[in-house]
Amino acid sequence: MEHESPLVSSITLLTDFGTRDAYVAAMKGVIASIAPRAQVVDISHDVEPQAVAQAGFLWYCAVRYFPPGTVHVAVIDPEVGTDREILAVEARGAVFLAPDNGLIGYALRRSEVRRAVFVQRPDLYLKPLSRTFHGRDIFAPVAAHLAMGAAVAELGPEAKGYRWSSLPRERLRRRGNVFTSRGEVLDVDRFGNVITNLTRLPSGRWLGLDAGGHRVSRLARSYADAARGEAVVVEGSSGFLELSVREGSAAERLGLKVGDAVRASWKVEGRKSKVES
Amino acid sequence: MEHESPLVSSITLLTDFGTRDAYVAAMKGVIASIAPRAQVVDISHDVEPQAVAQAGFLWYCAVRYFPPGTVHVAVIDPEVGTDREILAVEARGAVFLAPDNGLIGYALRRSEVRRAVFVQRPDLYLKPLSRTFHGRDIFAPVAAHLAMGAAVAELGPEAKGYRWSSLPRERLRRRGNVFTSRGEVLDVDRFGNVITNLTRLPSGRWLGLDAGGHRVSRLARSYADAARGEAVVVEGSSGFLELSVREGSAAERLGLKVGDAVRASWKVEGRKSKVES
Amino acid sequence: MEHESPLVSSITLLTDFGTRDAYVAAMKGVIASIAPRAQVVDISHDVEPQAVAQAGFLWYCAVRYFPPGTVHVAVIDPEVGTDREILAVEARGAVFLAPDNGLIGYALRRSEVRRAVFVQRPDLYLKPLSRTFHGRDIFAPVAAHLAMGAAVAELGPEAKGYRWSSLPRERLRRRGNVFTSRGEVLDVDRFGNVITNLTRLPSGRWLGLDAGGHRVSRLARSYADAARGEAVVVEGSSGFLELSVREGSAAERLGLKVGDAVRASWKVEGRKSKVES
Repeated sequence: MEHESPLVSSITLLTDFGTRDAYVAAMKGVIASIAPRAQVVDISHDVEPQAVAQAGFLWYCAVRYFPPGTVHVAVIDPEVGTDREILAVEARGAVFLAPDNGLIGYALRRSEVRRAVFVQRPDLYLKPLSRTFHGRDIFAPVAAHLAMGAAVAELGPEAKGYRWSSLPRERLRRRGNVFTSRGEVLDVDRFGNVITNLTRLPSGRWLGLDAGGHRVSRLARSYADAARGEAVVVEGSSGFLELSVREGSAAERLGLKVGDAVRASWKVEGRKSKVES
Repeated sequence: MEHESPLVSSITLLTDFGTRDAYVAAMKGVIASIAPRAQVVDISHDVEPQAVAQAGFLWYCAVRYFPPGTVHVAVIDPEVGTDREILAVEARGAVFLAPDNGLIGYALRRSEVRRAVFVQRPDLYLKPLSRTFHGRDIFAPVAAHLAMGAAVAELGPEAKGYRWSSLPRERLRRRGNVFTSRGEVLDVDRFGNVITNLTRLPSGRWLGLDAGGHRVSRLARSYADAARGEAVVVEGSSGFLELSVREGSAAERLGLKVGDAVRASWKVEGRKSKVES
Repeated sequence: MEHESPLVSSITLLTDFGTRDAYVAAMKGVIASIAPRAQVVDISHDVEPQAVAQAGFLWYCAVRYFPPGTVHVAVIDPEVGTDREILAVEARGAVFLAPDNGLIGYALRRSEVRRAVFVQRPDLYLKPLSRTFHGRDIFAPVAAHLAMGAAVAELGPEAKGYRWSSLPRERLRRRGNVFTSRGEVLDVDRFGNVITNLTRLPSGRWLGLDAGGHRVSRLARSYADAARGEAVVVEGSSGFLELSVREGSAAERLGLKVGDAVRASWKVEGRKSKVES
């Protein structure tokens, strides 16, 4: 394969392989054999096994901070060994490589896709090709060739009908002067912060966020802007509303887990009130 | 120490130090001080404390994917601070550095050893030399000098009588038309897959794999080629038979752990049947 | 910002962010965008949430092994989003960047501070600046500029009245011929070793180390210099006395945790006995 550029891109890895086993290391060995100067950065390997949506949220949060040209690889692949395709997408000035299970949609937000192909280059794969570990046998060598300058267009035919998921959107409603936005829990982070898909900080009078049978009324500016043990709503670093308990776990306190319903409410007064939707 | 080559090799690290403490970081600091341009790749640091055989299996799975010239370092070292030797071995185009406790044998399979020495170069070690952390004080600086081009032969006298372990071999038997291969559980991975040391996919009629009082009859081509919750046998990515439960833990379901006995059986029909041993 | 040097320094990261979420990866993405050739080394991300003293101990153990010029970043930041300052310190030939919560003191031991500033360079920060994730929005870009050669003095005004913590010191006492040194548990490592802040191996006759209602009398030279299951005192790799149980957890066996009181005692005979304090 010809390499278009003398520059070596960085590669990021997102998997559900964990770090206890040698799976991630085998991928890095394959990459080092083909693209020895490529920097490899771990996004996370602690995605729950086969949790595509959770991985999608992490990818959504991380990829935009990497420089143009980065090769982003995600291997959360419950269908490994079946005839599912592998998708390579050029978008946002970067390349995304993942099983065709919707994952790349999370990373791209509303970005335009410049090119999308189904990867079909057995000449690049490891031999013998296993049926259970395409991370090592397909994704790693293909990513390394991309980092060395291979073009997405060289990897296979234009992809049509590929799967495309994205973060669930909140749903806004009005009843009289009261607005509600309904959504769900996207993730619970290491600190027990409950990250929702609600984005709007209302312009009217905030009433509270309902979740797990509790109403959390206090809007805090930061995690520290709360009494110890108090549950508050914070605008989190990914632009979403979070439930947080200072020096504690909001998820445990409020009994919340990924996928649980949440609802924010606020009230607008008078006729001029306006909420952008 | 003279360095033979202007090229800087990569270094891989395999330890039981975990990632919570600063032990691995101290090793990386020492390496960076001597070989600042060496890439350091983690194989795993989550080996069970002092579990030499588990580490050996991970090394076995990972090292062959790294490029020639790589310096592979493993510090699972229950005898640190005693008079056990440290072994440096040149083989497979790479260098292996580990306590003389058998570990390197796992990585090398049947490869020929080009050179093996006992490391005895106090001039390279950190001072003061601790009795409890040779990973930092001996392995890290020696690995860094190797990455900078030092030759194994410079590190100490030729090693004689060193320890050499390897993965346990399966034992094949025939009784009439029925073949059995007996082995054991090598590892349980993050997904709960039970990795055995059985390698042969029989050419006759498969009867099943017996383990933990269960017989698993279904041979699946991939993890996804199973009903949800069904236990199946899969040919895993390291060439060994694995027990797997889709969206579940085979180890929990079948009550299996490392070292437990397993047995595969199959039947050959007629006189022409042949099983390679 | 002008960069003074063509050399790119390494950056180490110490956080309580864990490795499950995308927080550390976002920091690395920001760094790669500004300083693509900077090597980034993880000290640990598994500090207990907001445990400044625990992080301080890990920093104390690790930073001295890195080469001069390294940029050491620690983000254990319970006050993120408040008006707490961020401190950048030049000392020991390296640069330290952390919230002004005392953390840097642990790393520096008794080293002289060459320069200390409060970081006030909004032009370098990510926009929009979140109130909850300064690791990504402030620490990462500032660290990357430092790695590219920016001088500490450029980052803000000279820091006055900054906070400064350090490891607790042991307290030595004499009563007759018996000396005692009182201290506390600094950390419990992955192996269950209990690391104290007691440093002195007495020159007199060792009596034992009292902790958790137990007296441990046996002084071992290494972890292996103990019977299986026996609790011993070992001089650990950071220069502190540790309690250790071979093939077991000293913390569990002795019921000890961080902060618990410990006391070593020894006896000097005759008039010439001397203990350096």
